[in-house]
Amino acid sequence: MTRRSRLSPRVRVWLVAGLSLVGGYVIATARQVVVRPPLVLGQDAVSGPQSREARVTLEQAGGSVIRVRPVTGEAGTLLVFYPGGLVRPQAYEWLGRALAARGVETVIPVFPLDLAVTAANRADALIATYGAGKRVVIAGHSLGGAMAAQYAARHAGRVQGLILMAAYPAGNVSLKGQSLPALSLLAERDAVADPAAVRGGLERLPDGATLTVIPGAVHAFFGRYGPQKGDGEPSVSRAQAEGDILNAVTGFLGRL
Amino acid sequence: MTRRSRLSPRVRVWLVAGLSLVGGYVIATARQVVVRPPLVLGQDAVSGPQSREARVTLEQAGGSVIRVRPVTGEAGTLLVFYPGGLVRPQAYEWLGRALAARGVETVIPVFPLDLAVTAANRADALIATYGAGKRVVIAGHSLGGAMAAQYAARHAGRVQGLILMAAYPAGNVSLKGQSLPALSLLAERDAVADPAAVRGGLERLPDGATLTVIPGAVHAFFGRYGPQKGDGEPSVSRAQAEGDILNAVTGFLGRL
Repeated sequence: MTRRSRLSPRVRVWLVAGLSLVGGYVIATARQVVVRPPLVLGQDAVSGPQSREARVTLEQAGGSVIRVRPVTGEAGTLLVFYPGGLVRPQAYEWLGRALAARGVETVIPVFPLDLAVTAANRADALIATYGAGKRVVIAGHSLGGAMAAQYAARHAGRVQGLILMAAYPAGNVSLKGQSLPALSLLAERDAVADPAAVRGGLERLPDGATLTVIPGAVHAFFGRYGPQKGDGEPSVSRAQAEGDILNAVTGFLGRL
Repeated sequence: MTRRSRLSPRVRVWLVAGLSLVGGYVIATARQVVVRPPLVLGQDAVSGPQSREARVTLEQAGGSVIRVRPVTGEAGTLLVFYPGGLVRPQAYEWLGRALAARGVETVIPVFPLDLAVTAANRADALIATYGAGKRVVIAGHSLGGAMAAQYAARHAGRVQGLILMAAYPAGNVSLKGQSLPALSLLAERDAVADPAAVRGGLERLPDGATLTVIPGAVHAFFGRYGPQKGDGEPSVSRAQAEGDILNAVTGFLGRL
């Protein structure tokens, strides 16, 4: 009470007004992050005509997950895909659909706040639910890639391959010495994930990890979520970059 | 003072706190609209290799404008393009670049708040600056299309063609009776601009106006700004829809 009594009523009212104004501002700003855009399947997910035939469902396995299966329902490979930070998972449905036409099943978990870091071990439940009898590969874009690498590092033997897209293992995560096949995709004109850092990340990937450059591509070309603030200027079309990404991924999966 | 004295100091503080909280919330929310994302040229604007060769500059003509010219610098047609509401103008650079490879110059004005309705007559300055010796066509997407139609209706003779993309003239705007060639593009799976309203808009376009349906496309496929809330589910790839849009536009321009 002693400190409070030093403030005149008028000062106190101004103080309350100022703090409340800041509070309201913070609430509205936080709301943008906390309230995610709607989860809509099929929003922009078609490539060629074959990609239309995939079976896409929203299921529950340790939380919501987008499951993309070949039209036959049968797949020899399960790809667990961690989205980039604050990117809605449906942005990667295009990749799942394109891979489904090649006999791969893809599961894209919905993370709290769209941040893979909130539940980096989501792969556990996904592999338990969908992985039986399949070769399991974990992949991720950007922050999701870093979390995929962390999962692979800490659960040796649970995945048979690792694919990083515009991503690298965090400084305290290393897969050095593991015999896990790994592929790192670098968007040549990425200005969000520093290409030098992506290249540097090879040091913390298993020996024999491959780096493939996607010519002319930018950070936002891995997911269909629109242009990204601070990204580079691409010199190819998104469609061409997607074709190159798909070739690199299917080539890697084919060699497992 | 009489009313004020009825409130106890405690109630007054709560009132101030509540109003300030709401005020802060409103300020943060308004900021999202007022502060536009950065204007970045070339962010996602390439289609085929030819589209890379266009000359793109940010110029001043009654305000900022993105100018996209053929590599030769020469063009027989000037396309004035009004962006959709709250869509950054660079989302349509892809169209300008693709048309540049076909000898068309495109100017895309930057509108205050990215709302064409704030300056529907921007075409005046653009035509004066860039239109000399050229056939002038005005076009627009969504809200920009409605404003393009309004400009054409109120400035008969100043443009030689009108192209609406997922748009229609407002109820109080009619070009009926004008001899202006007009093309209306309808995205088959548009769930933002009601297809019935787009078709109905033909009633307020000049006789002989053509409606062309872009099969499987959605509202957000006219500009490269990412998926749009409330939009439909496309059954084709964005690249295919863009090809169809381009064919319809070049066909129309070729018949002028």
